[in-house]
Amino acid sequence: MFEARFQTFEDASERAESADRVAALRTELKRRGLSGFVVPRADRQQNEYLPASEERLAWLTGFTGSAGAAVVLIDKAAMFVDGRYTVQADAQVDKAVFAIEHLVDMPPSQWLAKNAKAGDKIGYDPWLHTSEGVERLKQAAADAGAELVAVDSNPIDVLWRNRPAPPSGPVTLRDIKFAGESAADKLKRVRAELDRPKADVLVVSDSQNVAWTFNIRGSDIAHTPLALAFAVIPREGRPRLYVEPKKLDNAVRAALEDIADIGAPDDLTRDLAALKDKIVRLDQASAADALSRIVSEHGGKPTRAADPITLMKAVKNHAEIAGTRAAHLRDGAAVTRFLAWLDREAPKGTLTEIDAVAALESFRRDTGLLKDVSFPTISGAGPNAAIVHYRVTRDSNRKLGLNELFLIDSGAQYEDGTTDITRTVVIGEPSEEMRDRFTRVLKGHIAIATAVYPENTTGAQLDSLARVSLWQAGLDFDHGTGHGVGSYLSVHEGPARISKLGHVPLRRGMILSNEPGYYKTAAYGIRIENLVLVIAAPEPAGAERPLNAFETLTLAPIDRRLVDMRMLAAKERHWLDSYHERVREEVAPLVDQQTRTWLAAATRPL
Amino acid sequence: MFEARFQTFEDASERAESADRVAALRTELKRRGLSGFVVPRADRQQNEYLPASEERLAWLTGFTGSAGAAVVLIDKAAMFVDGRYTVQADAQVDKAVFAIEHLVDMPPSQWLAKNAKAGDKIGYDPWLHTSEGVERLKQAAADAGAELVAVDSNPIDVLWRNRPAPPSGPVTLRDIKFAGESAADKLKRVRAELDRPKADVLVVSDSQNVAWTFNIRGSDIAHTPLALAFAVIPREGRPRLYVEPKKLDNAVRAALEDIADIGAPDDLTRDLAALKDKIVRLDQASAADALSRIVSEHGGKPTRAADPITLMKAVKNHAEIAGTRAAHLRDGAAVTRFLAWLDREAPKGTLTEIDAVAALESFRRDTGLLKDVSFPTISGAGPNAAIVHYRVTRDSNRKLGLNELFLIDSGAQYEDGTTDITRTVVIGEPSEEMRDRFTRVLKGHIAIATAVYPENTTGAQLDSLARVSLWQAGLDFDHGTGHGVGSYLSVHEGPARISKLGHVPLRRGMILSNEPGYYKTAAYGIRIENLVLVIAAPEPAGAERPLNAFETLTLAPIDRRLVDMRMLAAKERHWLDSYHERVREEVAPLVDQQTRTWLAAATRPL
Repeated sequence: MFEARFQTFEDASERAESADRVAALRTELKRRGLSGFVVPRADRQQNEYLPASEERLAWLTGFTGSAGAAVVLIDKAAMFVDGRYTVQADAQVDKAVFAIEHLVDMPPSQWLAKNAKAGDKIGYDPWLHTSEGVERLKQAAADAGAELVAVDSNPIDVLWRNRPAPPSGPVTLRDIKFAGESAADKLKRVRAELDRPKADVLVVSDSQNVAWTFNIRGSDIAHTPLALAFAVIPREGRPRLYVEPKKLDNAVRAALEDIADIGAPDDLTRDLAALKDKIVRLDQASAADALSRIVSEHGGKPTRAADPITLMKAVKNHAEIAGTRAAHLRDGAAVTRFLAWLDREAPKGTLTEIDAVAALESFRRDTGLLKDVSFPTISGAGPNAAIVHYRVTRDSNRKLGLNELFLIDSGAQYEDGTTDITRTVVIGEPSEEMRDRFTRVLKGHIAIATAVYPENTTGAQLDSLARVSLWQAGLDFDHGTGHGVGSYLSVHEGPARISKLGHVPLRRGMILSNEPGYYKTAAYGIRIENLVLVIAAPEPAGAERPLNAFETLTLAPIDRRLVDMRMLAAKERHWLDSYHERVREEVAPLVDQQTRTWLAAATRPL
Repeated sequence: MFEARFQTFEDASERAESADRVAALRTELKRRGLSGFVVPRADRQQNEYLPASEERLAWLTGFTGSAGAAVVLIDKAAMFVDGRYTVQADAQVDKAVFAIEHLVDMPPSQWLAKNAKAGDKIGYDPWLHTSEGVERLKQAAADAGAELVAVDSNPIDVLWRNRPAPPSGPVTLRDIKFAGESAADKLKRVRAELDRPKADVLVVSDSQNVAWTFNIRGSDIAHTPLALAFAVIPREGRPRLYVEPKKLDNAVRAALEDIADIGAPDDLTRDLAALKDKIVRLDQASAADALSRIVSEHGGKPTRAADPITLMKAVKNHAEIAGTRAAHLRDGAAVTRFLAWLDREAPKGTLTEIDAVAALESFRRDTGLLKDVSFPTISGAGPNAAIVHYRVTRDSNRKLGLNELFLIDSGAQYEDGTTDITRTVVIGEPSEEMRDRFTRVLKGHIAIATAVYPENTTGAQLDSLARVSLWQAGLDFDHGTGHGVGSYLSVHEGPARISKLGHVPLRRGMILSNEPGYYKTAAYGIRIENLVLVIAAPEPAGAERPLNAFETLTLAPIDRRLVDMRMLAAKERHWLDSYHERVREEVAPLVDQQTRTWLAAATRPL
């Protein structure tokens, strides 16, 4: 039978405990002379997925979503979530304890400015906030005549009984055949970046960047093969890698000691304190405020800038690209098997969203190479798919209904690459409206897939191409068109993206998603997502500027039954037919006969 | 005969005087204990066009372009210009005195950081820089161990003999039939904006915003009907308008005194000094650093933000839109007469770029309503048109050659509206390449003209639609697609624009230019520019979001001979034919028989 091993469908909320825990926190705050405390959903490295030991917000509030924050004052408390999570917060959070506020319209800082009292001392854990975040809170506290105070130890950690142990997954070395560049060579390139702006030392606070630089992977966090680790890279001299010693076996340690000194995470504080008079570059996106405080308090000069590794990592080399191509072919075969299976089984009317997740994961596991799913699968039938970040639980689990759409957004971690794909299929017959909307989304997808654009074009410049066909009908979608994707790393990787806010020029070798959608509230949701690679475009005669284009990496059929051919221009139809021909030719040899027959039909020309 | 009265074609550079003047400045600096001085091209209000009395940079360096700066140290000096002006600076600036630097790659601040010496005191006139600009210079000076020092009086003003008198054009009231809203009502709306963020007083430092708010116009500056004026608008109590008293006749003064107190410009300093403890909002784009200094020195609290009037002014009301439509019809008739004349005369081979400027201005003057051209006409034949900001002089003046393209970008100030139009025409026969390029630019122009987009879409989101057809051929253009345009005000008006940097949502009532182009260095230039108005788009059935679109305001034929019909989609061809039909129907009644015959041919369907 099919089984999902990499994600759960339980509501893990400890809502019932929340009132007692908040009361205990208040007692602890009073004991420390504090009148409030800010609880972000964050660990020390601003990771997207948190180890269980870092889920302080969930412990305190019951809220288990992937973004949020809380502020507890002595006489009131508020929970902050964005539009994606208002329904979930409603169910998981005890509203007798927390007022629920909108994270964007009324962020914690603004709420604090309104609700703190003059003279209040509001605590925060400097390890869990970036300096930018702290500045906002500080200003807000000051506006209320209150003071923001860094705590030496997190008061929640004192109260949290049965707190899970910190993760201790082993660190592995990434094979050079996948990494494509040695850690020594990468370090050379990183050091060269420390001239602009000039810095004596780079603190690498993003675990993804540590993983890329040192060619290591780990298993401290779900869905992303990361080891929690820091590094300090001086412009001259040996770099130092900070990682829990027990995570390293002798071979790994020996290999790493060739290029770096190894320290325990606790050594970081001591080493930063020794950087008197040095210019210490800290990543504005991931560096904890604590790092900056330690450096300044000991006479160093923290300067905030983007970690140059973030951009270097985003530009994949030949080995990473080859690995990603192999991963996508393998993954495409698994997804194709799933789609063929779904097409046979779904019309029977018994399949649920959870069944689909389990089946898809099982087909992927059949490859023998699946390390993890790259994020919890979004499996939405009918109206559930209209919730952009829907995550199925036993409670919400819905049958795949006849004449409804089913959307499944999923991805895999293989050692050679990370995948991310969304397909939307119809069970039975689609309505005219569904076909119209699907075809508009498809036209947007094709506009990105076929775009050619000069070097240095940003994702922000391309984003609207994915929307024009929806705009013409008075429709749109409320998320970006694409995000960066790592190479056996995070499925959400900076710095480039295809969105209004994507101001980083796209460079050859970057991998991004192409995922326009359309969501009709309480009715259905559509998204078509392939990953694409930025490549050099063929130069037309007379071209004056180097051109880039996207190569589509993902290989799986797009539901032809949802396409209104009359709405496609000849070029668009040609793209879909060619894509399907490619999918058929590449995937067919990797699947069973039954799937192959289905694939031939699913990929025939329009 | 034709005559240009509103622009000159002389090279006004006083290059030969430059060495003496710089020597005199150095003496004066030493006398004051200064080791350097920064000379921006700016007046006290950061106007685009400067009164002659404010052309300190031209006086000192000989450079007469519209953007630039200089820094004079005791032993060296540098002139900074951007890519548009390197050729002109080369001709106008004495390179024995000034090194010429690139304004973007090596801005004055960076140059200062590199060239100032420890202990240097570098002077600047706080009236001629924004606070943001000063902060950059201050940091740069500090990096070099030097100090940036505000001067009480500009040392150039002491040395400048025969300095032109400041402008003293009369102030007129803008008729309510053109303004559409009384100054009293506008002031009420402006005051309401002072709640977010909260301010006690708004300092209106942009003369355009003063003009809009008080419904006044002036003639202090070429091409923009502005009176140099400041205003201070308190949240409660009477506003105060600061304008040279002799510019007001009794009737104008009486009308203004109904809504405001009137002060002389010199009173502003005194009044700002009286704002102790008040939150004083200063426009970051136009407010001189001097204003902020005066406020802080006297205990007020300057806060920097965008002047809310900039956005309010950009959204035109019904009267302004009606006026603009009338202005465009009138202007379209004049441009059509010009194009018909050009088509008759140019093939004879004797016309020059200056002849074309004079003719076009004369046709506009024939309307009897021309107040000024809205900017110096760009009239470029053959390779001259490849220089994006080309301005013809007696020296550069070129004959309109056979089988060449001719580009003319011009605009008018009428009391009911401001126009801006570019047409590119062929004299004789175009090459295949010219037609290909022109058609690609036209496709971009049509993509903007026909775009529909949800409310709150920004110009940045639309900009690439104008480029896709060029990108496909490996081509692009290095300027934005469109800028805002005023209502009998500046032809370049913020805050919205259609460009990578246009992050302001487009709102109904905004007027922008739609002007994609293509420039082949040393060969030819193409630009097709109409002004467009943001309007509500018709709602398609099932639309979920309010949609906006553009209405094209400009009315003049686009050269059909340059269009390769095979490259146009049916919809694009339909747009051009409909546009031409509209031009013919609206303009024909306003022109002579000869022009009407030409117009009928020039606007027949493709």
